[in-house]
Amino acid sequence: MTDTALHRTTADSSPRLAAYHALEGHFAELCHLGRALSLLSWDRAVMMPKTGAAARGKQCSTLVQIRHKKLTDEKIGDLLQAAATETAAMSDWQHANLREMTRLYRRAVAVPNDLAAALSRAANACETKWEEARPENDFAGVEPYLLELLSLTRQSGQAIADACGMDNIYDAMLDEFDMGARYQDIAPLFADLEEWLPDAVNRAIEKQTPPLPLGQTPSVALQEKLGRFLLEKMGYHGRFDTSSHPFSTGRHGDVRITTRYTSDDFTVDGVLTVMHEAGHGLYDMQVPEEWDEQPVGGVFDLSMAVHESQAMVWERQIGQSLPLWRFLAPYCRDLFGRADDDPAFQPENLYRNVNMVKKDLIRVEADEMTYPLHILLRTKLEKAMIDGDLEIKDLPAAWNDEMQDKFGITPPNDAQGCMQDVHWYGGHFGYFPSYLLGAMNAAQVFQSIRRDIPEIDTDIAAGKFDPVRIWLRENIHSRGCLNMPRDIIKEATGDYLKLENFRNHLTARYLEG
Amino acid sequence: MTDTALHRTTADSSPRLAAYHALEGHFAELCHLGRALSLLSWDRAVMMPKTGAAARGKQCSTLVQIRHKKLTDEKIGDLLQAAATETAAMSDWQHANLREMTRLYRRAVAVPNDLAAALSRAANACETKWEEARPENDFAGVEPYLLELLSLTRQSGQAIADACGMDNIYDAMLDEFDMGARYQDIAPLFADLEEWLPDAVNRAIEKQTPPLPLGQTPSVALQEKLGRFLLEKMGYHGRFDTSSHPFSTGRHGDVRITTRYTSDDFTVDGVLTVMHEAGHGLYDMQVPEEWDEQPVGGVFDLSMAVHESQAMVWERQIGQSLPLWRFLAPYCRDLFGRADDDPAFQPENLYRNVNMVKKDLIRVEADEMTYPLHILLRTKLEKAMIDGDLEIKDLPAAWNDEMQDKFGITPPNDAQGCMQDVHWYGGHFGYFPSYLLGAMNAAQVFQSIRRDIPEIDTDIAAGKFDPVRIWLRENIHSRGCLNMPRDIIKEATGDYLKLENFRNHLTARYLEG
Repeated sequence: MTDTALHRTTADSSPRLAAYHALEGHFAELCHLGRALSLLSWDRAVMMPKTGAAARGKQCSTLVQIRHKKLTDEKIGDLLQAAATETAAMSDWQHANLREMTRLYRRAVAVPNDLAAALSRAANACETKWEEARPENDFAGVEPYLLELLSLTRQSGQAIADACGMDNIYDAMLDEFDMGARYQDIAPLFADLEEWLPDAVNRAIEKQTPPLPLGQTPSVALQEKLGRFLLEKMGYHGRFDTSSHPFSTGRHGDVRITTRYTSDDFTVDGVLTVMHEAGHGLYDMQVPEEWDEQPVGGVFDLSMAVHESQAMVWERQIGQSLPLWRFLAPYCRDLFGRADDDPAFQPENLYRNVNMVKKDLIRVEADEMTYPLHILLRTKLEKAMIDGDLEIKDLPAAWNDEMQDKFGITPPNDAQGCMQDVHWYGGHFGYFPSYLLGAMNAAQVFQSIRRDIPEIDTDIAAGKFDPVRIWLRENIHSRGCLNMPRDIIKEATGDYLKLENFRNHLTARYLEG
Repeated sequence: MTDTALHRTTADSSPRLAAYHALEGHFAELCHLGRALSLLSWDRAVMMPKTGAAARGKQCSTLVQIRHKKLTDEKIGDLLQAAATETAAMSDWQHANLREMTRLYRRAVAVPNDLAAALSRAANACETKWEEARPENDFAGVEPYLLELLSLTRQSGQAIADACGMDNIYDAMLDEFDMGARYQDIAPLFADLEEWLPDAVNRAIEKQTPPLPLGQTPSVALQEKLGRFLLEKMGYHGRFDTSSHPFSTGRHGDVRITTRYTSDDFTVDGVLTVMHEAGHGLYDMQVPEEWDEQPVGGVFDLSMAVHESQAMVWERQIGQSLPLWRFLAPYCRDLFGRADDDPAFQPENLYRNVNMVKKDLIRVEADEMTYPLHILLRTKLEKAMIDGDLEIKDLPAAWNDEMQDKFGITPPNDAQGCMQDVHWYGGHFGYFPSYLLGAMNAAQVFQSIRRDIPEIDTDIAAGKFDPVRIWLRENIHSRGCLNMPRDIIKEATGDYLKLENFRNHLTARYLEG
């Protein structure tokens, strides 16, 4: 790959690329619509009074419809056909951009409008019902909605699989969140992990020493100050707000992240969540600005597994490391008014605190070691549902069996079992694996960072995060969607994703030393 | 007008109204786009980092283009023609809605796309140049831009006047901001005011006693607390933020207002600006919610003169009244830690403080008595520019002559003269009169409130604002755009707008007692 191939060639408006350039115009407008939608969502989560929800819903729905109509316009199809004859004159960048345009268009037109509308309605209805049913622990109430939603999801997935030449429906789901991901590639990684992990979890639990308690939770104002201190060190420039579910959005000069302050442990909301979301934010901040508005620059749509890995490098690899707490402990003692010799606020104790392993029911509260078990469970069950091997009525029992098998515990109710996550009830099948792939990618990426920057632990212990940020920019962020996600990881780390790096990381942190 | 005619008849989806109902669907989508645009603008002014400006500009531009295309779609024209044959079956509400749809469509299609695009570009270029040129006091620099912009504005106005059967171009401008407003109706009101006001201003200045100084400006936090206290009393529910120029936006369950804290006088930013913007906000909050999404409920597009009057009722009629300060003085003393007998914080002194008259150069800093003179000057000059009777090159001299004539002062430079307001440089000719008409409408409306609620002064002095809010809802807000603006005022007050009420108000406040 030559250096020029990495840069957008804006000068070339030659008639040899007439169709391609017309497509760039169309996709820029689609991008603007997408950004407007993102802002409407950010505002809903962070700023909007609840009484604005119904009107906002209609605004978003209209914008989504307009975008869908624009993306599935016959003209786009014609232009894509014409542009396919122009490839000889294209740079690698333009070629990759055309590949992304084609993928987005193909997926969009594959699903007939009636089916897409029915699916969207079913997802809304099911998620709304789930919101009511979960606190009531009423799986029977939501069951018919999920049944309908799964049926439409399978039809839609089949249509996409047919149009895009995929072997099975589940691949069409995976591909939505992680371009090019195929079950046959993921399955062996997950199978090997499943063989090793349960026993490793038991050993980690046996080995660990519980930390001294951290005492009174610092005020929100102090936690926010700590968050802003970290963000500055990370080189993150953008908004930092609160919302009930932390998330990141935006691009370049207007990136926005949120956290919440609900945990009684400041290391959760005030440090790890902030580093996680800022990891996402840095990716969107550092994608080349001149690639903006084009699909090849749209990393968020590229791959949740790669995007998540950027969050995980900061949260898991750095945020849960001893060097980070060597750096943060004195700052926290000072900020929270703790004595220099306060044993709870020594680096080792804070490090222990963020790395406690515990088999428990809830995915979003899980630690680094048990989290993958939650994902393995969900991947297995959603694959079975999509394949027609697991009926919705049997989901609660199957969930509980898996929990017993993997954790040795059975949920006391479905609210803490198969109803705990919104994903399936919102129609998002195929999303869960990207969380685990993100964690695995992050371990592999950080190993490469360590190889390239041998003094990385000293840097982190000194609060010097710039080398990591710059490494990520140069090796990952600057590539946009120029390559397929798995190739991005290979290019950055020298190899396709291997379980070995993740296992080594967990072994070093939880089973050795 | 029967009561049922005031309510949207949603039940009737009879084929007799097929075209009309199709139009309702189209206009609902246009409304969603408009609301999304409003939110993008609010965010830009209140939340967005400056580095997001370029991207946000593109997002807004794409949405504006999509909306324009949707509004000028031939289908809309066909449906409007078809709906015109369905009027016999329509309720008054539907009839008014169709009238508004027709007006919006006619204005939009009147201007050819090329001209509209050129006008939009010229307005952007001129406003950008003005931003640079104003601090440099460089009228010559912006002159060619304004010349081009005026030329395109006149062409566009002529096209609208032709299509809508108006006598002259200036009426097409006025009508954009105040539906149905015609120069021939406004001119006599303004002429009579111009005859009376300059001498009245001199008498007010002679008569007034300067207030005792208020001392140190309270902190932003305390001013914000005062603002929130007032908003609660007013019955305003919505966001309250800061921005460099105060404004209001949103509707119903999601109304948003801003203020700023730049004045060293807390009564300006902490009270009067808050009441002004909340007056706008209450209008948008109280328009019938079931009218939402349809042009007949779109009061902001209806008439700036009526919308401004709702702000002015709260700012000028109530906010600058002695009863309001009888209510607020003890609260302010308590909030700002002033002694109960602090002479500067007695109601009479605070009342004097908000009603000082001073001939000065800048419109946005002007008091209630001299503000109309600024508008009379601008109306005269913009009418002359639109009519071709005043050349751009002669604008600075004409401005200074008018200032000498009306205020007895000559601006030391154009930055404090004809370059002080953005309106013309942004292409907004015909907007200024609505500020003055708003103040005049407010005086007439408040006289009716006083007639219907004789104990209003006692209520206000007790912080009881609900009667005013409810009166405005019942007599103005609940009517939406069912009638033309001037008829709304007549229906609410019993008469078309008369100068007399405004003159009586100013006389009572500044020349008597």
